[in-house]
Amino acid sequence: MNALSNARVTATHDLPASEAKWVNLQRLDYVDVTGKERTWEVATRKTRGKAGVDAVAIGNIIYHPSRPPSTILVLQFRPPVDATTVEWPAGLVDADETVEEAAVREMKEETGYEGKVISVSPIVAADPGMTSANMKLAMMEVHLKEGDPEPEQHLDEGENIQRVTVPLAELYDRLVEFGQKDRFCVAAKLYHWAAGIQFAKDHPDLFKR
Amino acid sequence: MNALSNARVTATHDLPASEAKWVNLQRLDYVDVTGKERTWEVATRKTRGKAGVDAVAIGNIIYHPSRPPSTILVLQFRPPVDATTVEWPAGLVDADETVEEAAVREMKEETGYEGKVISVSPIVAADPGMTSANMKLAMMEVHLKEGDPEPEQHLDEGENIQRVTVPLAELYDRLVEFGQKDRFCVAAKLYHWAAGIQFAKDHPDLFKR
Repeated sequence: MNALSNARVTATHDLPASEAKWVNLQRLDYVDVTGKERTWEVATRKTRGKAGVDAVAIGNIIYHPSRPPSTILVLQFRPPVDATTVEWPAGLVDADETVEEAAVREMKEETGYEGKVISVSPIVAADPGMTSANMKLAMMEVHLKEGDPEPEQHLDEGENIQRVTVPLAELYDRLVEFGQKDRFCVAAKLYHWAAGIQFAKDHPDLFKR
Repeated sequence: MNALSNARVTATHDLPASEAKWVNLQRLDYVDVTGKERTWEVATRKTRGKAGVDAVAIGNIIYHPSRPPSTILVLQFRPPVDATTVEWPAGLVDADETVEEAAVREMKEETGYEGKVISVSPIVAADPGMTSANMKLAMMEVHLKEGDPEPEQHLDEGENIQRVTVPLAELYDRLVEFGQKDRFCVAAKLYHWAAGIQFAKDHPDLFKR
């Protein structure tokens, strides 16, 4: 982790929305459920394409003949939180691609692995009190053979992403550990998925129909 | 749902950051892991208090002598996504309160129920490619007795929140249904928790240590 820990935010400037390329700040006029006119402040992405979805995250399961079922996580310095984040591979959906295409592309770019999309979630809202940002969770399976070499990443210029493969049975504990480390921050969505699994394991009686 | 479906966004205006009360738009200067100077655009909340955490979500479990174990969700019109969102109770942590205090307060305001916080997550990042927003997930238990009346909400002026109690065994299916309804949008974090539970139920073999 030495390399990742070198990165840090050095200065912060207010940014006029007209000068921003990626993110916009807007005031919304809206009518509430009682018919009253109100306003709300929102941050939006300027990059949403034809799919109507900003981003896709790849909830991946790695199968291997002699290793435990695992998931591959990506660690990268994220300036907005001035920390190294622990996330599933993810990325913006390009203007001219589908969510499934973006999932396969981002998985290959960030991890090198080629997988198959098994299911895709509805459009869900990342933080709907503050932003319009939305995403889909694509679940992907990667089937490895004995002796397959670790593939090369295909990172964009300026991307520096480290891969960590975690057995599913250890995922929740590993995320809690990462969450307690200085200058690390776990992504809320990945944490919630792992916490759901842990809760189901700890309380099997609560889920009987 | 008639009342909620009346609400809608009527106009959108670019907002200078200097005029915004809740959300800021900033440019960050940062040094990447190779030592190169770069910039990033970020939306931040202007309201973070002493706890260092913007928000808390309440992952609640409702126990009742004769009903299935359930969770209470809140439905409200959220201008940023111009839709009625399906979320766990949640709110901003006030400047002078702890995350646990905010969880108990928000649960009572939005649902009327009084519960006990069982566990609190590490600080996790809501959408760390775009915003600095962070949160903690507080798990809460509410124990009801036979015949307990549904408590009254304690909503702020302008809040209009509907409660929906969902058996845990049905949560994932209900969220997928909501996610397919016109003008509804499920929160990503709640969806991920439910998807984690569903995945653990569907793939018990993958989690053996």
